[in-house]
Amino acid sequence: MMSKPLAISMGEPAGIGPDLILSLYARRVELNLPVFCVFGHVEFLKARAQRLGLSFDIVATSAAEAGAVFAGALPVMPVEGLVSDHPGKASPLAAHAVIQSIADAVEATLAGTCRGLVTAPINKASLYHAGFKHPGHTEFLAELCAGGGVQKLPVMMLAHGGLRAVPVTIHVPIKDVPRLLTKELIVETGRIVAHDLKQRFGIANPRIAIAGLNPHAGEGGAIGREDLEIVAPAVAELQFELIDAVGPLPADTLFYPAHWANYDAVLAMYHDQALIPIKTVAFEDAVNVTLGLPIVRTSPDHGTAFDLAGTGKGSNKSFLAAIRMADAMTAQAA
Amino acid sequence: MMSKPLAISMGEPAGIGPDLILSLYARRVELNLPVFCVFGHVEFLKARAQRLGLSFDIVATSAAEAGAVFAGALPVMPVEGLVSDHPGKASPLAAHAVIQSIADAVEATLAGTCRGLVTAPINKASLYHAGFKHPGHTEFLAELCAGGGVQKLPVMMLAHGGLRAVPVTIHVPIKDVPRLLTKELIVETGRIVAHDLKQRFGIANPRIAIAGLNPHAGEGGAIGREDLEIVAPAVAELQFELIDAVGPLPADTLFYPAHWANYDAVLAMYHDQALIPIKTVAFEDAVNVTLGLPIVRTSPDHGTAFDLAGTGKGSNKSFLAAIRMADAMTAQAA
Repeated sequence: MMSKPLAISMGEPAGIGPDLILSLYARRVELNLPVFCVFGHVEFLKARAQRLGLSFDIVATSAAEAGAVFAGALPVMPVEGLVSDHPGKASPLAAHAVIQSIADAVEATLAGTCRGLVTAPINKASLYHAGFKHPGHTEFLAELCAGGGVQKLPVMMLAHGGLRAVPVTIHVPIKDVPRLLTKELIVETGRIVAHDLKQRFGIANPRIAIAGLNPHAGEGGAIGREDLEIVAPAVAELQFELIDAVGPLPADTLFYPAHWANYDAVLAMYHDQALIPIKTVAFEDAVNVTLGLPIVRTSPDHGTAFDLAGTGKGSNKSFLAAIRMADAMTAQAA
Repeated sequence: MMSKPLAISMGEPAGIGPDLILSLYARRVELNLPVFCVFGHVEFLKARAQRLGLSFDIVATSAAEAGAVFAGALPVMPVEGLVSDHPGKASPLAAHAVIQSIADAVEATLAGTCRGLVTAPINKASLYHAGFKHPGHTEFLAELCAGGGVQKLPVMMLAHGGLRAVPVTIHVPIKDVPRLLTKELIVETGRIVAHDLKQRFGIANPRIAIAGLNPHAGEGGAIGREDLEIVAPAVAELQFELIDAVGPLPADTLFYPAHWANYDAVLAMYHDQALIPIKTVAFEDAVNVTLGLPIVRTSPDHGTAFDLAGTGKGSNKSFLAAIRMADAMTAQAA
């Protein structure tokens, strides 16, 4: 019985993503990894493997054959382009291949040839001149998944075991957060989180805590009105929809792991409110999961780490955790 | 040789503060506690002790005699007023006694009769009608210490062992943070932190990290201009003053304990950016330390916990840590 593979996009070639994919593949037996195939550039991956002193076969194949190939060689769905092995030196020449590998991986996952997607980190700055106009990887995936139709709200979740945090606003300046934070956005995010925790994580009745925007969740209006006027009504709306939501709760006491574990997810109102606690408890092995998409997508919770690329250093814990989470979330489709 | 005592203000009588003071005193030998005296209401403290099943003498005395008294009885610097033992039920009648106990404790510490101050939590709402107009305990202490003169900037630091976080803005709504955050405020806070880490903590050359305001510390201007235009110039100014400061650094990766420990303190730009990480790693025994005052002041990092008052439940870890920290910070004056 050959398993349907997970798709892995190779990410920024000057970064650490290809290193981690290759070094994890080399330990596939020891780590009991699920079958995966890499959407990437074959010659580049061979050069990077050689640089890292890794010797195994890397073959261009199809996703359908990946399961048969995986034990003996790393299956690669090839993309064309000029991708050279220069660790730490991002080249705009590689942009088209990087973008194409993501697009192909999404297409194969949407089509069901692959059962889920793990993405290696990209370097947005290298991609802009090639027409990449998205604030981040996740928004690009949402557009690809929409296929030109109406785009769903992609929701970013950071997870470490049962500790999960979801920023409702993401890559925006702090000064814009109060304006962007609407009741509708919180409610829609809460719906998606509740839905996906049920469908993807098998949690029958997810418990969701909503953090307050302001210190002490606004202290009854003494420290800002948003928690009374925006967050509390959103919590009431979610409760009305029979979602087990509670809040707004003071953010500072919410993430002590013994408290946090009382909830299946915490909705945070802005980037650092979610990312500080998850990276404080799990710097090396938190996973970034995208909810609200028609496909399962995970990624390691770190960037390209240019300074470590090509060195064989750098922790693979987060990438490994991302693979394991995508595997668990799609096990029934394997 | 009798030690100079630490001053402890009794805090809100309906809260858990008096319970913790009394139960810690009961274990003074086992815990090897330094000599302290309580600024509070004698009859109330006797009633609360009886409620908790604690039997030891509680005597009105002077701070100068506390050292001689401490082994055999809890020394109390008495305040007058109507303070009844009703756990969980805050009464505005007690407001004058609560405020007076703080004022007396500050006066004794400023005068050098006591060597440092540990404050039990107050309930601001109960104090307002008695003329308390401060946004918090710390600001009240700053005013008392100024004695009618020019008030210094009080700086709040949360500490757990060597992990220390300082919010540069504190109890203000998120929407006001970008406006209130100035280069001058960051620099002055950094100066006070550097000064007090040297003087109070014996750290010869404190290493101070400054967190960015925006996600990813603004990503070079892509996510807000404040990190470039306000935070970075403040870091440069501190460096110019030969303070070992670095930043702005992305806040999300700063507080992983192995990273955090590289710095003697982290300056955070707002309340939750500092309090989320400290309470995530140390919910029960973080200590609140006020820097920038002419006296040493610590307090437990929790509130009045009305629901636990009078029950004998509730952790004393943070209060104990606050006593130990005030003791260590003033050991040379003991």
